[in-house]
Amino acid sequence: MNPRRVASLAFALAFLIPLQASADPAASPRVEALISKMTLEEKAGQLTMNTTFPPQESNYRDIRDAIRAGAVGSVYNVHNVNQAREMQDIAVKESRLKIPLLMAHDILHGFRTIFPIALGQAASWDFDAIRRAERVAAEETTADGINMTLAPMFDISHDARWGRVVEGAGESVWLASRIAEARIKGFQGDSLSNKTSLLACVKHIGANGAVIGGREYTAADVSQRAMRQEFLPPFKAALDAGARCFMAGLNAPDGLPTIANPWLLKDVMRGEWGFKGIVMSDFDGVKALVEHGLVRDGDRIETARIAFQAGAGLDMQSNDFFRAIPKLVREGVIAEKDVDDAVRRILVVKEEMGLFETPHHGLEPGRTKTPPPTKEALAVAQELAEKSVVLLKNSGSDAQAGGKILPLSPDVKKVALVGPLADNADDVVGAWSARSVLSEVVTLKKGLEQRLPNAKVVTTPGGRTHDARDEEIAAAVETARDAEVVVLALGEAFADTGEAQARANLDLPGRQMELARKVLALGKPTIVIVMAGRPLVLTELDQISPALIYAWQPGTMTGPAIARLLMGDVEPLGRLPMTFPRSLGQVPLSHDYRPTGRPYLDPMEGFRAGYGDTSIKPLYAFGYGKTYTKLSYGAPQLDRKVMRAGETAKVKVDVSNDSMRAGTAMVQIYVGIRVARVSQPLKQLRGFKRVKLDPYTTQTVELEVKADDFAYWDVDGQRIMAPGPIDVMAGFDAEDVKTATLEFRP
Amino acid sequence: MNPRRVASLAFALAFLIPLQASADPAASPRVEALISKMTLEEKAGQLTMNTTFPPQESNYRDIRDAIRAGAVGSVYNVHNVNQAREMQDIAVKESRLKIPLLMAHDILHGFRTIFPIALGQAASWDFDAIRRAERVAAEETTADGINMTLAPMFDISHDARWGRVVEGAGESVWLASRIAEARIKGFQGDSLSNKTSLLACVKHIGANGAVIGGREYTAADVSQRAMRQEFLPPFKAALDAGARCFMAGLNAPDGLPTIANPWLLKDVMRGEWGFKGIVMSDFDGVKALVEHGLVRDGDRIETARIAFQAGAGLDMQSNDFFRAIPKLVREGVIAEKDVDDAVRRILVVKEEMGLFETPHHGLEPGRTKTPPPTKEALAVAQELAEKSVVLLKNSGSDAQAGGKILPLSPDVKKVALVGPLADNADDVVGAWSARSVLSEVVTLKKGLEQRLPNAKVVTTPGGRTHDARDEEIAAAVETARDAEVVVLALGEAFADTGEAQARANLDLPGRQMELARKVLALGKPTIVIVMAGRPLVLTELDQISPALIYAWQPGTMTGPAIARLLMGDVEPLGRLPMTFPRSLGQVPLSHDYRPTGRPYLDPMEGFRAGYGDTSIKPLYAFGYGKTYTKLSYGAPQLDRKVMRAGETAKVKVDVSNDSMRAGTAMVQIYVGIRVARVSQPLKQLRGFKRVKLDPYTTQTVELEVKADDFAYWDVDGQRIMAPGPIDVMAGFDAEDVKTATLEFRP
Repeated sequence: MNPRRVASLAFALAFLIPLQASADPAASPRVEALISKMTLEEKAGQLTMNTTFPPQESNYRDIRDAIRAGAVGSVYNVHNVNQAREMQDIAVKESRLKIPLLMAHDILHGFRTIFPIALGQAASWDFDAIRRAERVAAEETTADGINMTLAPMFDISHDARWGRVVEGAGESVWLASRIAEARIKGFQGDSLSNKTSLLACVKHIGANGAVIGGREYTAADVSQRAMRQEFLPPFKAALDAGARCFMAGLNAPDGLPTIANPWLLKDVMRGEWGFKGIVMSDFDGVKALVEHGLVRDGDRIETARIAFQAGAGLDMQSNDFFRAIPKLVREGVIAEKDVDDAVRRILVVKEEMGLFETPHHGLEPGRTKTPPPTKEALAVAQELAEKSVVLLKNSGSDAQAGGKILPLSPDVKKVALVGPLADNADDVVGAWSARSVLSEVVTLKKGLEQRLPNAKVVTTPGGRTHDARDEEIAAAVETARDAEVVVLALGEAFADTGEAQARANLDLPGRQMELARKVLALGKPTIVIVMAGRPLVLTELDQISPALIYAWQPGTMTGPAIARLLMGDVEPLGRLPMTFPRSLGQVPLSHDYRPTGRPYLDPMEGFRAGYGDTSIKPLYAFGYGKTYTKLSYGAPQLDRKVMRAGETAKVKVDVSNDSMRAGTAMVQIYVGIRVARVSQPLKQLRGFKRVKLDPYTTQTVELEVKADDFAYWDVDGQRIMAPGPIDVMAGFDAEDVKTATLEFRP
Repeated sequence: MNPRRVASLAFALAFLIPLQASADPAASPRVEALISKMTLEEKAGQLTMNTTFPPQESNYRDIRDAIRAGAVGSVYNVHNVNQAREMQDIAVKESRLKIPLLMAHDILHGFRTIFPIALGQAASWDFDAIRRAERVAAEETTADGINMTLAPMFDISHDARWGRVVEGAGESVWLASRIAEARIKGFQGDSLSNKTSLLACVKHIGANGAVIGGREYTAADVSQRAMRQEFLPPFKAALDAGARCFMAGLNAPDGLPTIANPWLLKDVMRGEWGFKGIVMSDFDGVKALVEHGLVRDGDRIETARIAFQAGAGLDMQSNDFFRAIPKLVREGVIAEKDVDDAVRRILVVKEEMGLFETPHHGLEPGRTKTPPPTKEALAVAQELAEKSVVLLKNSGSDAQAGGKILPLSPDVKKVALVGPLADNADDVVGAWSARSVLSEVVTLKKGLEQRLPNAKVVTTPGGRTHDARDEEIAAAVETARDAEVVVLALGEAFADTGEAQARANLDLPGRQMELARKVLALGKPTIVIVMAGRPLVLTELDQISPALIYAWQPGTMTGPAIARLLMGDVEPLGRLPMTFPRSLGQVPLSHDYRPTGRPYLDPMEGFRAGYGDTSIKPLYAFGYGKTYTKLSYGAPQLDRKVMRAGETAKVKVDVSNDSMRAGTAMVQIYVGIRVARVSQPLKQLRGFKRVKLDPYTTQTVELEVKADDFAYWDVDGQRIMAPGPIDVMAGFDAEDVKTATLEFRP
């Protein structure tokens, strides 16, 4: 079929589907009866979410009064189980219409049991483990009376300076889309009405990761075409997996704050996608239309009008909807029917969750305090922490006469554990750690001591992440000098990442590199473990460390997970979900860049896309992660030379384990649409497969690419498939691949 | 008038104007007669520009054969006057139709007389001096038989890593637009038919400066709205000033290589702007559609079809037009009439230049060699070099007991001149230095010696820009130790900037900071002069230098210009045309950023747009530049509180000279459209004025803002004016301003 016809067909379908799907959610008698009874103020209240401490702009001194009056339909930041119970009780017993509340919290990587930071989880590439972790998080959260999480987050970003990469799934829309499915299924279970199902609100739709210079809330220009192709896919995947709520980003790609973008919120989401659920603002996002320059200072009626008419249905915190909507209806600016539609979307979700029957949802009867994690929860946390760790380097050393440093010998007798992350619970839980209890965190020190009961583990932190005194550094060096094996635990503070935590520098903070240089200069068998919330620039550390591990911020089970990995009880499985730059000046950097007219050549030549003072290549590519085995990859073999629309091609890749240790190999598969109407990335991840390999064996791994993997968005907003050659690349990571080419004839 | 009506009117006008303007250029009998006689191959030849060494893809072994055959209508990189004469003679005597050639060269900042790099010239903010410099360049170039320059360049960029900022006019569309007018008038004079008029080809239309990570040829996503507002204005200004040729950028903003972008080349340029001249490709830009992934490898017919149908009219170097166009016409893919239109646009320009009557244009009869610069040319070069220098810091020193270091005392007896730029001619001419002759460059050493005939100037470079031996550094330090005053000349090599010369690091290259630390540790009265092709990160140098000057790469008259400035014969007038970052991690950075919903506060607070580890503020703001006087600025006073469409408001600002030295003050004026349908930058430069102030006097400077300064582009591609408050800011630079507000009611 020629591309025009495919485009026309897609266009026709795009019209058909929304016409059915954009209809309002199926009315239930209860919901319709409620709407018919509600005052305009009660309707506006349902479109309002407030924090438990009411904002200055609220009419109510206390959130309880607001709930009682029907002035808020959802609350944010419920602080403990008693508060959750009390507020829901007020809503369903003391408010006029007895409508239950959505009660929300930021559950980004666990509630009481803290899993690795979301970016670390993404490094596991293990969707089932991620799903199970979110299941645990949902069980813990709902048992505390909270029924909604302002998560998961899928802001694609290519800039490690941005502190918020910690919350996301990295740079690949494919990987993020698969993780989106896993997280939604984990949070929400099979049905929202299950008592342990937590309503997810996926954030931040738009292009919230398209920041400038890593600075939070800023927005690079993003065209509609780019938004569709480079930012929206994980959100669409979340929707298809059952997401019922989306939060609009605070930033303004292409000049329009997302909460004021009717093209996205109405045309795309409601129209093309047929989305029937809730679109909410970020914290004060409606009010922020003033700061964005869309509304005059002080006009908190106009903020609400713009956001509501653009398609927003739930105002978090600014109270502008509550203030403005009754007035706007009475003045005829907006139709009450449109307000009813927005209210209906919220009430239908509440009904779907079963809140009208069981307003306390999963809240455990009689519970007054959050209990510590269960054994089962900790096991999931440990598994995911183990799977998130990425082995960056594992060389021989003088001490081992050419052998690999890792895994460590079970006979190790004296370990020096140094560095600010050595016995640190605060930082390893990362940003947004919900109800974490630091005393429950098993630090690296505890984990090593438990795992090596017969060895002496001497711990000297050598200062803190952001500062150290000379004598602290010296003491750590002395500890290292005296040991058989050194574990050097470095990293970021938990507050170095997270919302509004950008860094203009991607080095280890404080004096940690000084400590590292001194410890590594001793020439001991040393394993450097970096725990951080973002990719850091590790070029020097890579050069001077015999073994280097990136553990992200692993959460509650930090210690056991890393200890087991060091000892070889488990193998390193993590793969980088973001490109690690070689130098700060290379960012933004990603594996899926678009081509130029003058492709980079290595080594650099004149008049080519590159740098004069460094390579354009990353230090560690997207998808990188070593194992304890020695792997080699054959070229991909395709089962066809020509492929048509609707078909799936098989891709076979031989993988060999050339070592005496059994282990797991991963084959990653990338596609490059070589000829397109709009320049397409040279490589985009489209799948992977893991396989266990015995020592000195080879297996043929079968993967596939689907015709749909070759679709892209044209300048006119159509998703098309066009004829032309397609590169199918397979191998170890985004850089180390071999290529086969097929001809696509849709 | 309400904004909708303004938009409607603009829309209506946008339809009216193009209908008249997009008609083909007025046919002349000669041109029409030629077209009627031309074969398809001769027509394709007119749409072809080749280098003087023919490319591999050409049918001709020698460019002379190609000219004789009518296979090229323009040549690029004419190397000397004899070659120019010979080629034009072949064209007009030996080719069948005797059509004269366009003969092009890259004249970016002078021909034989080298002016400061274009970015340095932009720092002068002196449009008349820039115009006169281009006049000199045009006179020198045309006298050598070259009739076209592939310049000026106006790629707006916010990223100092990009090596090509050296060619542009900095980050402000307003400043770049004014410089565009000056350069076009300078190159082209009053009329293209003047023998000293050089046909300008303005580059690179599109968004060629929207690079990612500073990497040449890459392209960030750029929406049509952003392209109109943030990239195109200088090109429109150049067109209005008489530009007859534009070169399309090599990169692919929003996925479409500019040479393949019919929206820009046809709808906007021909339609809305009514442009009747030439749109040419960059070097191999048509062929590069293969590398961009728009065309199958090897299909050099399709490259031509796409570019031609998108609106390109002159193929530089790839020969794809020559190869493909006759075939495409014969096969009925493109209409011969469209080819005729493209040929007509070129022939009309040639006719307008008078080449049919005087094919050698300004070539001096009997000339066989390029002569050295005239005294008049050198005077213009010196003036512009002086005006380009920016004084960054001028503090007291121990040695002078609290006085300012600059200007230096006329009684200075012993000067140590150290640093790799001390006696360096190679690097101070910068990138693209055309016919520069290094022996004609007056280095800083020569300049200081000439200016201080009674002082001893001891020069020890202390190594080269990119490397130095320990003993070289030590020798320079010894020289400095021994002097009354030290001049430390640091900077970049000429090859550190220019096309494809990105740097991932913005520090001084090599060991120059080591040298600087050692020299400055001596505590001598030291003036640090940085000569570089881009903004560098000078944070440490600013802290440790008592006086700091940014001289860019000043060209032929480097020495006299800097010497006169140091001695106070002239005052420092330069102002930064790009923001200077405080740290590498802050880039991209510019003064005209759009607001966020969470504005930065200084000092940084939680949940704000900023960095955790550094300020969001630049080291030196856009517009920064100190003087030898002490200036203070009053608040702007507006002559009205309300302004309507078509009106101009007067803005009065009191400026005081609080020093005993007379000098020139500059008042800069910025506007911020506080409320708009699309978030607008908080500040955009809209004008400035200079005024001479006697010691201890105050003057009231009158500036103005026009209603047109408040127009912006809406999401739907309309240029609109909307009611709302407007901040009018005036003061010293983009950061140091005071604000008055008016209400705009168009």
